[in-house]
Amino acid sequence: MPDENSKSGELLIRPIAWHRGPFRQKLGIPRQAGLHEALSSLELDLEQVGPASVEGLEGVSHLWLTFGFSAHSSASAKDSVRPPRLGGHERLGIFATRSPYRHNGLGLSLVKLEGVEFPQLSIRGADLLDGTPIYDIKPYLPWAEAPSGARCDWATQAPAKMQIVFSDAAHGQLAAYTRGGEIRALIVQCLVVDPRPAYDRGAPQREFRTRIGPVDVHFCVEGGELTVTQIKWVLPDN
Amino acid sequence: MPDENSKSGELLIRPIAWHRGPFRQKLGIPRQAGLHEALSSLELDLEQVGPASVEGLEGVSHLWLTFGFSAHSSASAKDSVRPPRLGGHERLGIFATRSPYRHNGLGLSLVKLEGVEFPQLSIRGADLLDGTPIYDIKPYLPWAEAPSGARCDWATQAPAKMQIVFSDAAHGQLAAYTRGGEIRALIVQCLVVDPRPAYDRGAPQREFRTRIGPVDVHFCVEGGELTVTQIKWVLPDN
Repeated sequence: MPDENSKSGELLIRPIAWHRGPFRQKLGIPRQAGLHEALSSLELDLEQVGPASVEGLEGVSHLWLTFGFSAHSSASAKDSVRPPRLGGHERLGIFATRSPYRHNGLGLSLVKLEGVEFPQLSIRGADLLDGTPIYDIKPYLPWAEAPSGARCDWATQAPAKMQIVFSDAAHGQLAAYTRGGEIRALIVQCLVVDPRPAYDRGAPQREFRTRIGPVDVHFCVEGGELTVTQIKWVLPDN
Repeated sequence: MPDENSKSGELLIRPIAWHRGPFRQKLGIPRQAGLHEALSSLELDLEQVGPASVEGLEGVSHLWLTFGFSAHSSASAKDSVRPPRLGGHERLGIFATRSPYRHNGLGLSLVKLEGVEFPQLSIRGADLLDGTPIYDIKPYLPWAEAPSGARCDWATQAPAKMQIVFSDAAHGQLAAYTRGGEIRALIVQCLVVDPRPAYDRGAPQREFRTRIGPVDVHFCVEGGELTVTQIKWVLPDN
């Protein structure tokens, strides 16, 4: 693309792959990749890349994905944001955070590579919506990218994990589905990192709803315990 | 940018900063960030971002830079490449490597943040040319981005470091400059990771030349020893 990378530095980029996974809306997605174990896949775009592009990839355990945040986020780029980590009250510069409201709408996620079958890559732990465009895939280099003494003062450790409880109603609803066990595991993986928006955690009786894979999940939170109250199938059970 | 992130996933990105550093040509640049200690800086683009964008950044020790490889590299994107690590003979898929010949011309570098003085960020260890466009800056998250058991089979450890020797002539040339000590340190930092192209390492008598900061450095390599033979000033000594 010789003419597109001009002196102004403007660059037109095109997806080399698309993410295919169980998340269809933002609320259900854990905020950092690698904190859950959900399986999903990357579908390489055959108009952009050929089979040679994945040669040797099975020797790599983790991948960096450069992806595009949804158009909504990048349309509202901001110089500073209020990270959920800080309760949504304190402002931080966008470059001190991993917020989606970035100037170029580019995200970065570290995922585990589980399998290579061109044009599909199976991955684990992606914090991405279904349909997310992927602009690059790179190997993680352990000897260069795990610096000693690294720190991020406003987010010093992984978010605390929630205790997940299923109500009797939710238990019964899961038991009625062929893939109930699999769906249960996916729900736990997704909700274990508190998925509620930071600005909306005040009322313990408040019921939240999120789509996870083929189901709508209703839940409420009190202290460190998250109770799944209802599970409703919204896609055909296949 | 609501209209630019279309359904096709095409995205027009603009630099939010530019790299200012001592490297003006590719040969002198160590191939992975973090392997050397050279100081350089990022100059934020005032048309894109304001002072609020760096609030709180002093609490972050390391930064991910998403940058653009030179137009030359991205114009010749390839599905597979011959990494210098493998002697330049073996092919690997582009997504298994960090080669610059990538489809969207985007690079990723981890650097140490040394200081924040808007619109400048002082950084250490960037493997970037002077003038490189920067599309994003993100904090490194130690608890999410140093996975245990990560591996990259074809590049299992940091490249071996060279022993650096200065010839009598080079010693004399350095002594003649006001900033001789500083330039010497920069030369060592840059050459300690063998900078020679993989396809061109056969002849031990071959002399190489690279621009490092204000000087042209001539060197030759035998075994693990790199001898700096000549140092020639090409910029005013200020």
